[in-house]
Amino acid sequence: MKSNDQIKSKIPVGILGATGSVGQKFIELLAEHPWFEIAAVAASDRSAGKAYRDAAHWFMSKPLPSRIADMTVKACEPDLPCRIVFSGLDASVAGEIETNFAKAGYIVISNSRNHRSDPDVPILVPEVNADHLEIVKTQQNGQGAIITNPNCAATGLVVALKPLLDKFGLSKVNVVTMQAISGAGYPGVASLDIIDNVVPFIGGEEGKLESEPQKILGNYCDGRIEPAQFKVSASCNRVAVTDGHMECVSVKLARKPSANKIITEWKEFRSEPQRLKLPSAPANPLCYFEENNYPQPKLHRLLGDGMTVAIGRLRECPILDYKFVLLSHNTIRGAAGGAILNAELFVAKGGLETRK
Amino acid sequence: MKSNDQIKSKIPVGILGATGSVGQKFIELLAEHPWFEIAAVAASDRSAGKAYRDAAHWFMSKPLPSRIADMTVKACEPDLPCRIVFSGLDASVAGEIETNFAKAGYIVISNSRNHRSDPDVPILVPEVNADHLEIVKTQQNGQGAIITNPNCAATGLVVALKPLLDKFGLSKVNVVTMQAISGAGYPGVASLDIIDNVVPFIGGEEGKLESEPQKILGNYCDGRIEPAQFKVSASCNRVAVTDGHMECVSVKLARKPSANKIITEWKEFRSEPQRLKLPSAPANPLCYFEENNYPQPKLHRLLGDGMTVAIGRLRECPILDYKFVLLSHNTIRGAAGGAILNAELFVAKGGLETRK
Amino acid sequence: MKSNDQIKSKIPVGILGATGSVGQKFIELLAEHPWFEIAAVAASDRSAGKAYRDAAHWFMSKPLPSRIADMTVKACEPDLPCRIVFSGLDASVAGEIETNFAKAGYIVISNSRNHRSDPDVPILVPEVNADHLEIVKTQQNGQGAIITNPNCAATGLVVALKPLLDKFGLSKVNVVTMQAISGAGYPGVASLDIIDNVVPFIGGEEGKLESEPQKILGNYCDGRIEPAQFKVSASCNRVAVTDGHMECVSVKLARKPSANKIITEWKEFRSEPQRLKLPSAPANPLCYFEENNYPQPKLHRLLGDGMTVAIGRLRECPILDYKFVLLSHNTIRGAAGGAILNAELFVAKGGLETRK
Amino acid sequence: MKSNDQIKSKIPVGILGATGSVGQKFIELLAEHPWFEIAAVAASDRSAGKAYRDAAHWFMSKPLPSRIADMTVKACEPDLPCRIVFSGLDASVAGEIETNFAKAGYIVISNSRNHRSDPDVPILVPEVNADHLEIVKTQQNGQGAIITNPNCAATGLVVALKPLLDKFGLSKVNVVTMQAISGAGYPGVASLDIIDNVVPFIGGEEGKLESEPQKILGNYCDGRIEPAQFKVSASCNRVAVTDGHMECVSVKLARKPSANKIITEWKEFRSEPQRLKLPSAPANPLCYFEENNYPQPKLHRLLGDGMTVAIGRLRECPILDYKFVLLSHNTIRGAAGGAILNAELFVAKGGLETRK
Repeated sequence: MKSNDQIKSKIPVGILGATGSVGQKFIELLAEHPWFEIAAVAASDRSAGKAYRDAAHWFMSKPLPSRIADMTVKACEPDLPCRIVFSGLDASVAGEIETNFAKAGYIVISNSRNHRSDPDVPILVPEVNADHLEIVKTQQNGQGAIITNPNCAATGLVVALKPLLDKFGLSKVNVVTMQAISGAGYPGVASLDIIDNVVPFIGGEEGKLESEPQKILGNYCDGRIEPAQFKVSASCNRVAVTDGHMECVSVKLARKPSANKIITEWKEFRSEPQRLKLPSAPANPLCYFEENNYPQPKLHRLLGDGMTVAIGRLRECPILDYKFVLLSHNTIRGAAGGAILNAELFVAKGGLETRK
Repeated sequence: MKSNDQIKSKIPVGILGATGSVGQKFIELLAEHPWFEIAAVAASDRSAGKAYRDAAHWFMSKPLPSRIADMTVKACEPDLPCRIVFSGLDASVAGEIETNFAKAGYIVISNSRNHRSDPDVPILVPEVNADHLEIVKTQQNGQGAIITNPNCAATGLVVALKPLLDKFGLSKVNVVTMQAISGAGYPGVASLDIIDNVVPFIGGEEGKLESEPQKILGNYCDGRIEPAQFKVSASCNRVAVTDGHMECVSVKLARKPSANKIITEWKEFRSEPQRLKLPSAPANPLCYFEENNYPQPKLHRLLGDGMTVAIGRLRECPILDYKFVLLSHNTIRGAAGGAILNAELFVAKGGLETRK
Repeated sequence: MKSNDQIKSKIPVGILGATGSVGQKFIELLAEHPWFEIAAVAASDRSAGKAYRDAAHWFMSKPLPSRIADMTVKACEPDLPCRIVFSGLDASVAGEIETNFAKAGYIVISNSRNHRSDPDVPILVPEVNADHLEIVKTQQNGQGAIITNPNCAATGLVVALKPLLDKFGLSKVNVVTMQAISGAGYPGVASLDIIDNVVPFIGGEEGKLESEPQKILGNYCDGRIEPAQFKVSASCNRVAVTDGHMECVSVKLARKPSANKIITEWKEFRSEPQRLKLPSAPANPLCYFEENNYPQPKLHRLLGDGMTVAIGRLRECPILDYKFVLLSHNTIRGAAGGAILNAELFVAKGGLETRK
Repeated sequence: MKSNDQIKSKIPVGILGATGSVGQKFIELLAEHPWFEIAAVAASDRSAGKAYRDAAHWFMSKPLPSRIADMTVKACEPDLPCRIVFSGLDASVAGEIETNFAKAGYIVISNSRNHRSDPDVPILVPEVNADHLEIVKTQQNGQGAIITNPNCAATGLVVALKPLLDKFGLSKVNVVTMQAISGAGYPGVASLDIIDNVVPFIGGEEGKLESEPQKILGNYCDGRIEPAQFKVSASCNRVAVTDGHMECVSVKLARKPSANKIITEWKEFRSEPQRLKLPSAPANPLCYFEENNYPQPKLHRLLGDGMTVAIGRLRECPILDYKFVLLSHNTIRGAAGGAILNAELFVAKGGLETRK
C-alpha cells in the first residue's frame, strides 16, 4: 500500500473531454494534487489542436492555471503520455473512446454512465465498496481498466445508506431529488427554464437512481457483484441552485433502531479512504446536522472540500421507517472529486504496480 | 340555490389582515368580483386609522385599486359594515379575532390555521367536500360561522387525491414539496436564505400536510366528520420560486387500476363548484399534462386563473403503486382564491338567507 | 382612417419564425386580437411540414391556442395566404427572407435588426415617430413594404426621451441597462451564466442603443429621415430577470427645466396610437412613479398589458442634468407587442387600401 | 515597521456587532489570521450573556469555529480584553458605542458609516490613501482611535480610480451599480423583492458614493484631508446576486491617454499593502480582464481571496472619455476584509507601539 510519502514524483494523468464542465472540474481539482499531474488534455476533434485557453469556455470559480491554458488540446486517441486518464466525456461518445483507451492499456477513471452497468466494471465509491475494485481484474483489457463512479445523485445517497444497510438492513428507499443546474453541464439548462421555476424531470436520471445503488451496495464475491436486494423509487427535479444536490429520502429497514442509533452510525462512519488517508478523502464522509433546517446547498456543499455528504432532519416516517434529508456536491463528490478519489484508491492499492 | 344572475346588488365583504400578503391577494382577486364588493379593510392596531395606501406595502402585480387605496384601515373589531369577512390574519392573532367575529354573527371565511382542527369547523375545498359545509350548523356561533380552507400545500394535494380515493381507495400518500416563497408572506423568506439554495424545512408545515387531508377527504355524517383512513408522510422544502407549490407524490391505492384509468378520472373530474358555476371555479379543477417535464410553476401556475391544479408524470412506483407530480398556485388556489371559492359556495347554497 | 368598428372581418396575417421566442409571443398576443387573425405560421425548413405543436417548444405562460397547435408549419416562402407578415426571424436569415416577402408584395412587420439601418426603412415606434411611416413609400418594393421596430432596449428609451427632446431639447444620453434573459431568445442565456450573476456584455447591443435612438427620434422630411443630433453612451448588462429591461438614464438637455415640469410632460404624454385608439396602444404610453424604489420589473412590466413604459426616480445628476430609471417589457413593448402596434398603425392609416 | 515574522504571539482583538452579517464575516476571515486572534465577541443586550452559537444565526459558508461558538457574547462595553476592536455594528448604534471605545483607549476599526465624515477620521483604503492614517493623531481620543473603511460600493471604485487620478487627472465619474443582496445584511432584502427582479434604489447609498470617493482620494496635508475635486454621479440598484458588487463606470480625465496606457496602469498598480506584504493584501489590487464579458460576480468575486478588484471592458465613451466595468467583493474587500487590511496597516505602521 502506498502512502503519501512514498509517492515522490507525481503520476502523469490525462483528461478526456477536458473542455466540458466535468473536464474543467477535473482540471480545477487536480491543479494542486499531491499525487497526480496533468500531462495531457484531450477533447473532441473540434477542439483538438487548439490551445486549451482558446478551446474551452472556462467557467470554474478558480482561475484556469496558466500551465494548462497553454497546453495544446489533443484528440481522444490512446497515445497520451500517461497511464491514467480521467474521462469527463459525453455519454454520446464515451463508450467507445473509453473502451479504446482501456484496451490500449490505460486506466480509465470515468465519470460517464456508459460502462456502469457492464458486469465487470465497478461503480466505485471508495467509502462504500472499495472491495469492488477487485472486479477490474476480470476485465478483458490487458493492462488497461475501466473504473466508473455513480450518477451524481446516486453518490450521496449510497454513502448515507451504507451504514444503514450494514447495521440495520435495508428494504425500501424512496428518494425525491432537487438537483443543481451544474449537473446538466454547460450550456445545459436554459435560464428561461429554471429561474423562478422547478422542472420535475431529468432525462434518464430516475432510472439510474433506481438501479445503480443496488450494484454499488452489492456484495463482491468470486469475481461477481451480487446486487443488494432493496427497492428504490426516485423522482428527480431540477431547481435553481448552482451546485449541490438535495435529496429527501425515506427508508424501510430490516430492523428499526432508534433515531439516535442511526445518527451515531452516521457520525462515526469512517471507511477505507479515511484509513488510507487518501488525499481527496474527507475526514468525515458523513456530517449530521442537529439544526432542523440544515443541510442547505449554499451553506454546506463545500463541507470537506465538497467530499462530505451532509445529512439532517432524521425523523420517523408514517409510511416507511425513517426519513431524512441529504446534500452532496454534485460536481465534486458526485463527479470529478469522486473520480479522483477512485484513482487515488486504485493507486494506493498498488494498481499501477501490478499492471506494468 | 343562487345563480350569478340572481345576485343583483353585490354583497359587501370585509377583509381582516388586509395589509398582509394574503390580505393583498384577497383585494387583488376581489377587485372585479361579480358577487362581492369590498366594504371594509381591517388590520392590526398599527395600521388602523391610516389610509390603506399608507398602511400597506403593496406588492401584488396588479395595481392597487384606487378605491381601496383611499379606504381607512379599521381595527379588527366586529363592527364592520358587512356579513362576510375574509381572514388573512396571522396565526398569532387569528384564533381569537375570528371567534369574536363569528360570535358577533359574521361569516368568517378564514385562511388561517387556528380553527382548522376544531371538530365543528370544516376545512372546505368545494371540489372535494362541499357537503362538509353542513357542519357549520353545529357551531355554537348563532348567526355566525367559521369556514376554513386548508394549508396551501394541502389544497392541491386533496383535489388530486379526491378522484383516486373515490374510485380506487387510498391507503398511503408520500409527498415531498417544493414550495414557493410567497407562501411565507412578506417579508417572509430572506433572499440570503433562498437564492442559490433550498431550505429543507418549513415550520409546522409537515404536520399540517400529514393531518389535514384526512379530515378534508373524510365523510360528513350526522354532524361529524369522520377522517379518511389513509396515512400521509410529508417532507417540505422551500425553493427559489415566486408562486406555485410543486409536489412529488406517491400513492398506495386499495385497488390498483391502469395508469390510463387514473388519468381519465383526473381529466373528467368535475364537482360541485363546476355544477354551480361558481365565479371562481375553474372549468377543470384538474389538468393532466402528457409532456414528461410538465407541469412547471412558471408555465402552469396560472391555469384556470390560478384555480386549476396541474398534474403530470403519472408512472408506476417501485414502492407504492403510482407516483406523479402536481402543481398548485399557493396564494390563489391554496389561499385567497380558495377562500373566495368557499364564500361563493356558502352563498350559492343559501347560507346568507338561512342566517338572517 | 380606420376605426375598430370599420374592421368587420379580421385581416389574415402570417408569422415568420413562428417557433422561436418572438414568434411564440406574436402568437400569444395575436390570439384574441380584434383586427388580425393568424392565417399561417412559417419557420425554418427543419420545422416546415410539422404540426406547430410538434415543431415548437412552447414556453409562453398562456397555453398554446389549439387552433394554432394544429396548423402545419410552412416554409418561409412568399406564398402565404395573407398580406401582412410578422417577422420574428433570427438575424442570420431575416435579411434575405424579409426582402423576398416585401418584393413579393407582402407588408413585412419585422422585429429583426437586419433592415433597421436601411435609409428607406423606418424604425417605427408609433408614439414617437408615426410620421416615419411615410418613408415606406420610397421603398422599391412595389406593393410590399418593410417596417421594423427598434432593439428591445431602445424602445423604452425613445418613448421616455420623446417628450424631453420635443420640449427641452436633448444633447447627451447616458444609459446603463439591466436586461432580462428573455431578450436573448430560447435557449439563450445558460442558467450557469446568470443565476447568482450579472453578465456585463450583450453582443452588438450597445452599438444599437447608441445609434437607433437618433434615427427613431429624427425628422422625416422629403423622403428622408434626418437623425436627431444627440449622443448616446450605452452599457448593457444581463441580469437574472425573466422579463423587463431596466435602464438607468442620465440626460443633458438643451434647456434645463424643473423636475416637476419633466414629470408633468411624461404624465401627460399621449400620441398618435392613443388618438387612433389602436387596439394595442396603452392608455398611457408612460407611467411615472413617485415611490423612490419604483419601477421594478416584477411589479410593473405588465403595466398597460406590457405596452406602458414605467419611469421613476427623476433627480438631478451631478454630471449631466437629470437622471432617472425606466422599465420596459422587452418581449411585448420591445418586440412582438411593438411590432403589432406598428401593424395597427399601418392599417389604421389606410396602408392596405393604398397598396392593392 | 512590523513584518509577519516579528509578530510572535497573536494580537487579541474583539468584534463589536459579532452576531450580524459583517460580524460573522469578521469571524470567518479572522479564524486563521496570522496576526490577530479573536479574544471577545460583543453584541446587543439581546445577545449578551448567551453562547455565541445560540446568539447568532450563522450563515457563512465556512463552518463556525467551535472556539468562537463556545464564547459567551459580551455587551458592547469598553471592558473587552484587547486593544483592537472591529466594529460591524449597525449604524443605528455604532456612532456612540465606537466613540465610547475610542475614548476608553481602544483602536476601533469600523465598517460603519457613522464617523466616516468626521474630519479627523480617515476613510482608509490602504492601497489608495495609506497616508491618511496620520490624521488619526489629531483625534481627541487619547490612546484610542477610530478608523473607518468606505461604503462597500465605494471601495472597489476608489481602487480603480486611484491610478487614473494619479496619472491622468480625474474630473467626472458616472457610476451605475448592481449590488449584491449580502450588502443589506441579514435578513436584509426580502426574497419576494429580489427574485426575478431589480430594485433601483438603496437607501442612502447614492449619497455615500457621490461623496466618499473625494475624501478617500483626497490629499492629506498638515493634519487635514483636502478632498479631491471631481464629481460623482451614482445610481444604485439591487440585483439577485449573493456576493459581489458590479459597477458600470464612465470617467472624464484631465488628460485623455490611450486605452492601453490605462490598462497598463491598472495592471501594474501596486501600493503600500503590497510593499508591506500585509497578510490580507492581494498580490494584485486590480486585475484587468481582456475577455469582453468579464468580470462577473460568480466567477471573479473571490479573486485574491476577495480582495482584488476586477476590471474589464475599457472602451471609449461617447459622452465622457472612457467607460469600464468593475467588480468588488462587497463583504470582503468592501467590508470585513477591507477593515482587517486597515488594522494590519495600522499595526504594521507601529500604531500599537506608539499608543501604549
